[in-house]
Amino acid sequence: MKLLFIGDIVGRAGRKMLQDQLGRIIDRQMIDLVIANGENAAAGYGLTVPVLRELFDAGVDVVTSGNHIWDKKEINDSLEREERLLRPANYPSGLPGRGDGVYETPGGVKVAVLNLEGRVFMKNLDCPFRMADELVDMLRQETPIVFVDFHAEATSEKQALGHYLDGRVSAVVGTHTHVQTADERILAGGTGYLTDVGMTGSQDAVIGNQKEPAIERFLTQLPVRLEVAKKDPQLCAVVLTIDEETGRCEAIERLQVCP
Amino acid sequence: MKLLFIGDIVGRAGRKMLQDQLGRIIDRQMIDLVIANGENAAAGYGLTVPVLRELFDAGVDVVTSGNHIWDKKEINDSLEREERLLRPANYPSGLPGRGDGVYETPGGVKVAVLNLEGRVFMKNLDCPFRMADELVDMLRQETPIVFVDFHAEATSEKQALGHYLDGRVSAVVGTHTHVQTADERILAGGTGYLTDVGMTGSQDAVIGNQKEPAIERFLTQLPVRLEVAKKDPQLCAVVLTIDEETGRCEAIERLQVCP
Amino acid sequence: MKLLFIGDIVGRAGRKMLQDQLGRIIDRQMIDLVIANGENAAAGYGLTVPVLRELFDAGVDVVTSGNHIWDKKEINDSLEREERLLRPANYPSGLPGRGDGVYETPGGVKVAVLNLEGRVFMKNLDCPFRMADELVDMLRQETPIVFVDFHAEATSEKQALGHYLDGRVSAVVGTHTHVQTADERILAGGTGYLTDVGMTGSQDAVIGNQKEPAIERFLTQLPVRLEVAKKDPQLCAVVLTIDEETGRCEAIERLQVCP
Amino acid sequence: MKLLFIGDIVGRAGRKMLQDQLGRIIDRQMIDLVIANGENAAAGYGLTVPVLRELFDAGVDVVTSGNHIWDKKEINDSLEREERLLRPANYPSGLPGRGDGVYETPGGVKVAVLNLEGRVFMKNLDCPFRMADELVDMLRQETPIVFVDFHAEATSEKQALGHYLDGRVSAVVGTHTHVQTADERILAGGTGYLTDVGMTGSQDAVIGNQKEPAIERFLTQLPVRLEVAKKDPQLCAVVLTIDEETGRCEAIERLQVCP
Ligand SMILES: [Fe+2]
Ligand SMILES: [Fe+2]
Ligand SMILES: [Fe+2]
Ligand SMILES: [Fe+2]
Ligand SMILES: [Fe+2]
Ligand SMILES: [Fe+2]
Ligand SMILES: [Fe+2]
Ligand SMILES: [Fe+2]
Repeated sequence: MKLLFIGDIVGRAGRKMLQDQLGRIIDRQMIDLVIANGENAAAGYGLTVPVLRELFDAGVDVVTSGNHIWDKKEINDSLEREERLLRPANYPSGLPGRGDGVYETPGGVKVAVLNLEGRVFMKNLDCPFRMADELVDMLRQETPIVFVDFHAEATSEKQALGHYLDGRVSAVVGTHTHVQTADERILAGGTGYLTDVGMTGSQDAVIGNQKEPAIERFLTQLPVRLEVAKKDPQLCAVVLTIDEETGRCEAIERLQVCP
Repeated sequence: MKLLFIGDIVGRAGRKMLQDQLGRIIDRQMIDLVIANGENAAAGYGLTVPVLRELFDAGVDVVTSGNHIWDKKEINDSLEREERLLRPANYPSGLPGRGDGVYETPGGVKVAVLNLEGRVFMKNLDCPFRMADELVDMLRQETPIVFVDFHAEATSEKQALGHYLDGRVSAVVGTHTHVQTADERILAGGTGYLTDVGMTGSQDAVIGNQKEPAIERFLTQLPVRLEVAKKDPQLCAVVLTIDEETGRCEAIERLQVCP
Repeated sequence: MKLLFIGDIVGRAGRKMLQDQLGRIIDRQMIDLVIANGENAAAGYGLTVPVLRELFDAGVDVVTSGNHIWDKKEINDSLEREERLLRPANYPSGLPGRGDGVYETPGGVKVAVLNLEGRVFMKNLDCPFRMADELVDMLRQETPIVFVDFHAEATSEKQALGHYLDGRVSAVVGTHTHVQTADERILAGGTGYLTDVGMTGSQDAVIGNQKEPAIERFLTQLPVRLEVAKKDPQLCAVVLTIDEETGRCEAIERLQVCP
Repeated sequence: MKLLFIGDIVGRAGRKMLQDQLGRIIDRQMIDLVIANGENAAAGYGLTVPVLRELFDAGVDVVTSGNHIWDKKEINDSLEREERLLRPANYPSGLPGRGDGVYETPGGVKVAVLNLEGRVFMKNLDCPFRMADELVDMLRQETPIVFVDFHAEATSEKQALGHYLDGRVSAVVGTHTHVQTADERILAGGTGYLTDVGMTGSQDAVIGNQKEPAIERFLTQLPVRLEVAKKDPQLCAVVLTIDEETGRCEAIERLQVCP
């Protein structure tokens, strides 16, 4: 089966790319399931209910997220009720939403999706490694196909989790840095790995935001307000070919689609 | 002219790759000048005098560095005396060494190299943006060809500096994360840009270090000692084609070389 | 001469304490000059023009600040025009405002005030140690009495600056942690020192904010909105007795005033 | 009953103060149990077996610790076997040692001690608030007297934990910043609270280390080696008077003892 995972969709420019390109990618690549990280889809900060619906309408099957999912409180209801929306599993217990789910492709293949968040240079969450131990065991009782979106900053933490889960999940793909890395590979145990899939939004920008205020932030150290950029949008994604019987990754291919 | 820039050389595995591959790359690609980041060349931590000589002997013309250059004090003399060894320019004034230099290719073309370090999630250094303003102006009085190695963690800071210097330097290429990014491009003003060139060393590793202790660090939060890995070495680099008259980048190509 | 320095005034509760207590303190202690840190005076976040006027009306002669001074843009004009309002001197050049000033007591004694901000666990500013070298030299040409408000997080950075400036300034007093420390002393060279003077505002609180949302932040790791607390206000300050001829600190006394 | 808690003992200077002063303090104040934080007792970095024995020989009943306890691996055996040595309870499961214990005074009163570590500006540990929920419940089944050493950096995290545990424990006292704070109080629910008890060691120093290398670190941003200072030692501690029936704190008094 073939799984498409799309990196952090940033604002309207990102959503537009999705709407324009996703259908074609699904058709050409014969994709069975589409997962996309939506933490920046609503003007760069979190998700709203209409924006979430836009993502589903564009063809996304499952939406993962990260640190920005909490930016807009109105999404908490959806986190509770919408099974196709995930937030990192390793937030403290008791928060709205869930971090994993099992979904079925049109062909009847079960795919587990697990969303985790890193801790290096980020928040004080529960250990993503230990949380993965627990949840991966549970998910593998339902299906051998387990996809992990590891939303993290540090390359070391991402590579460490990839190796840690190697042979236990189908793929570990990173998000959050908004820049696609070129280190896609299949690890020794059969797990597909990519440090970061990159973002979907304007590339004439600083990780999706307008250049001028972003530069001003660094120059002044002041809390300058950032705005989502629009020019030169790009969709960044990864296509994973996974053996349905074993859950092993057979191929991993990076995508960068421009209009 | 063509410039080759090689990412953080990590330990013996990285130096071996350099010795085995550099000659061939120079010949095939007709490289005029070789720059390499050597901050992890001595067992992962800084540089020693013999290791620095090894890098030069392997064909490197200029060695840049980063936060790890200070790990071994014995290199301070070389920082003072060896003009082909740079450390980030934006350390406090009064420290050993220099952060920029102008070098000549065998064909007589002058190339300025500037080494800067980022501040996000790193040390409290002087502002790399303002330091660049000053030094780029000075270097451009000697040559239109200015190459910048920006040793930094955060993708936002790297992209911001790229855009900030666009049109003023030939290239801004990042190091430090040890993972090559896939966002090479020529910015609007003619500056070649790549968020991170990646490392040169073992790829069956966590950013060049052995997997087990690296994973143990995350699992235990203890100060576990890291060791450089050896298996599956790879050389990560970028080739920049630069117009000698204008200093503009005409082509930027990522390289990943395995034995 | 006697100088009173009041720690971070937090919201309305802090301003009320100031209005109720300052006159009496000035009278009893025969204070010649009143300095107060106002970075949290406007509902916990920065300063507004009317709030600044309130502080002056309550008897404050000079207002220092810190990282929160930039929270409300409307204060930028005052930073430019009002000489009695300071922000940390080691922000990048070109920002509104100034970080030092020389003021005169009613008795005609000149007192220099210098505001600096730390970098450990804070922003990427210019080096406060080197900035102090430069500005202290300049200020001492006008008066031997130099007071430093070092707005910083880490005790190590604060103690280091105290010792670094010992003998060159009359006092180094810290702010920012909102908790008064009990390590007041006169250093070997005659400089009065206190790691943190503490805050002026509600003590039945988490550093001046309501307890419940503050605790919820730690429990959930979510961006919970904090509100300034009101109960059990306290004024935290320090009284410095300084020799007018030499600028040496002769006495340093902590104050904690409850209604 | 009266409990004495002594802040981070730093190196030989700190141990000497302990040996010279502890007996007298116990006698004068009629102390029933002595707890001391020993994370810096061995030359500033962790503990060795002989140093631990020195602390017990000097009259300490229970040794708590913090982030530095892992600096010297030789102490791991003691962490496993010595019930009177604690390390923060909220490290990942599976590490050597324990974070809590119940001890008996000579008069037969049971006192529970709980050691926790903060996360703000520190390591990625398990949540100290939730860990406290669990362990305090358990400890209170053995005794109403529960003392908490919260080894943490940020004043906000420390005050939040104090209020969070108010009414459930006898005292929450902070360590780690090495500077005693002046905010001792009994919270509404009967819990004694102090943000930081301060350190025991040289005061003519930067948090216990020699001034010159500490200042050099800030000036150069280089990994300058720190050495424990010796001059002007001081013992920083707190005396808690606790009702044996209810576990409520009846009095809290800070101590600063010089030779
Ligand atoms: Fe993110
Ligand atoms: Fe994102
Ligand atoms: Fe490196
Ligand atoms: Fe580095
Ligand atoms: Fe403040
Ligand atoms: Fe502050
Ligand atoms: Fe300590
Ligand atoms: Fe500590």
